Amino acid sequence: MELLLLSNGKANEFPGLLGWARERVQSLLARKQVKRILLIPYALIRSDWDERARDLGDSLGVEAISIHHFDDPVAAINQAEAIFISGGNTWRLNQQLHEQGLIVPIQRAVRERGVPYVGWSAGCNVATPSIRTTNDMPVCNAAVLPALGLFPLQINPHYLDASISGHMGETRDERLAEFCAINPSEYVVALREASLLQVSGDTLEYWSAREQDFKIFKHGQEPQAFMDAIPLAELTPFRVR
Amino acid sequence: MELLLLSNGKANEFPGLLGWARERVQSLLARKQVKRILLIPYALIRSDWDERARDLGDSLGVEAISIHHFDDPVAAINQAEAIFISGGNTWRLNQQLHEQGLIVPIQRAVRERGVPYVGWSAGCNVATPSIRTTNDMPVCNAAVLPALGLFPLQINPHYLDASISGHMGETRDERLAEFCAINPSEYVVALREASLLQVSGDTLEYWSAREQDFKIFKHGQEPQAFMDAIPLAELTPFRVR
Repeated sequence: MELLLLSNGKANEFPGLLGWARERVQSLLARKQVKRILLIPYALIRSDWDERARDLGDSLGVEAISIHHFDDPVAAINQAEAIFISGGNTWRLNQQLHEQGLIVPIQRAVRERGVPYVGWSAGCNVATPSIRTTNDMPVCNAAVLPALGLFPLQINPHYLDASISGHMGETRDERLAEFCAINPSEYVVALREASLLQVSGDTLEYWSAREQDFKIFKHGQEPQAFMDAIPLAELTPFRVR
Repeated sequence: MELLLLSNGKANEFPGLLGWARERVQSLLARKQVKRILLIPYALIRSDWDERARDLGDSLGVEAISIHHFDDPVAAINQAEAIFISGGNTWRLNQQLHEQGLIVPIQRAVRERGVPYVGWSAGCNVATPSIRTTNDMPVCNAAVLPALGLFPLQINPHYLDASISGHMGETRDERLAEFCAINPSEYVVALREASLLQVSGDTLEYWSAREQDFKIFKHGQEPQAFMDAIPLAELTPFRVR
């Protein structure tokens, strides 16, 4: 299995979509001899899907085509050399994956055929067991929470321990503590901007373009910060690289 | 119908729970001759329910009792002189209202018996048609989105047009625009901290302790800011006071 789970798509000091992780994405595509990538843009509600595919292709120097150009999206997954899932609204994305019948085809492509999966923000959320740790508003009337489950722990992307001055609602840390109180057997991995988890075969690696830590939240424990994936080895089926 | 829908419970410069709106809440309780208020604390995941009831009673100078002390919560609603719904996690709150069978009893109490309803943050969200405009993480496995619908428009509490420095996820304005793009016939009222909507009989009023505006979001229109409820008169069955 080849997973690249990224907190976010853009970071100010690194131009271009996925610019902050470009070398890592390109190296994965080269290793798997990927010539064309398939973009799943369903999370984008107010942005143009073809423009996002162009931005992605330009930034990575490969051909990128959005899944909406295929009459049969399942066939598109079955033929894909690499699957890229864009950020945007996680609820809309997860709903579309379920409604278009793409959950099992993507799971099979990634798990059985080793097709690289690259997801950022909402695309990172749907790679986990459920979308319960997204930061988005639900927006849709029908809510489906179970997701692809390619990575076995919940991830909270765009994690920040700061809060907006004057905001009296719960902070992100409080929200994550609430999640853990309701789900005491589960762990949440909090990924800061410009940081990622990479699964390659049976190995797992953490990397941050800004050399920042990630945190693990668990009920009854103080959140702990780490600079490498070692503590995740005990919680996942992966070895740490 | 008597509704007080508040963006939030605490504001720094006004001590005590609902301190920023104390006079308005007390005046409503006096007018309706309320001696004892019923607190619905289900949104609180990590705070003590009795402590919240004590804070509320102390701040308002009335007796306050939490619904969890009643063997039959429906009977508690049926006997309530006033219903106060605390902020916290909107998903958990809405799930509990549905699971405990309280949706219809609360609707009847408020609509038919004129029992005052005071809700802040999550308690404000559940007074609207659905919880699709909450800012919370879902946290629960089962998601119920329809809510009490006492107020006919979606509200986004804790509204802020600022964003956290360094955050690359969508801003609140972008999330609300996404909601409107998916639901083009709907309006969202964005309530800033320390501001409220009050329904009394067939009249509607907007009030802000900091004399700030509120905004209305609608698909295809620039968000507009207002200092009084006049534009809401066209969108709701209420007259403006």
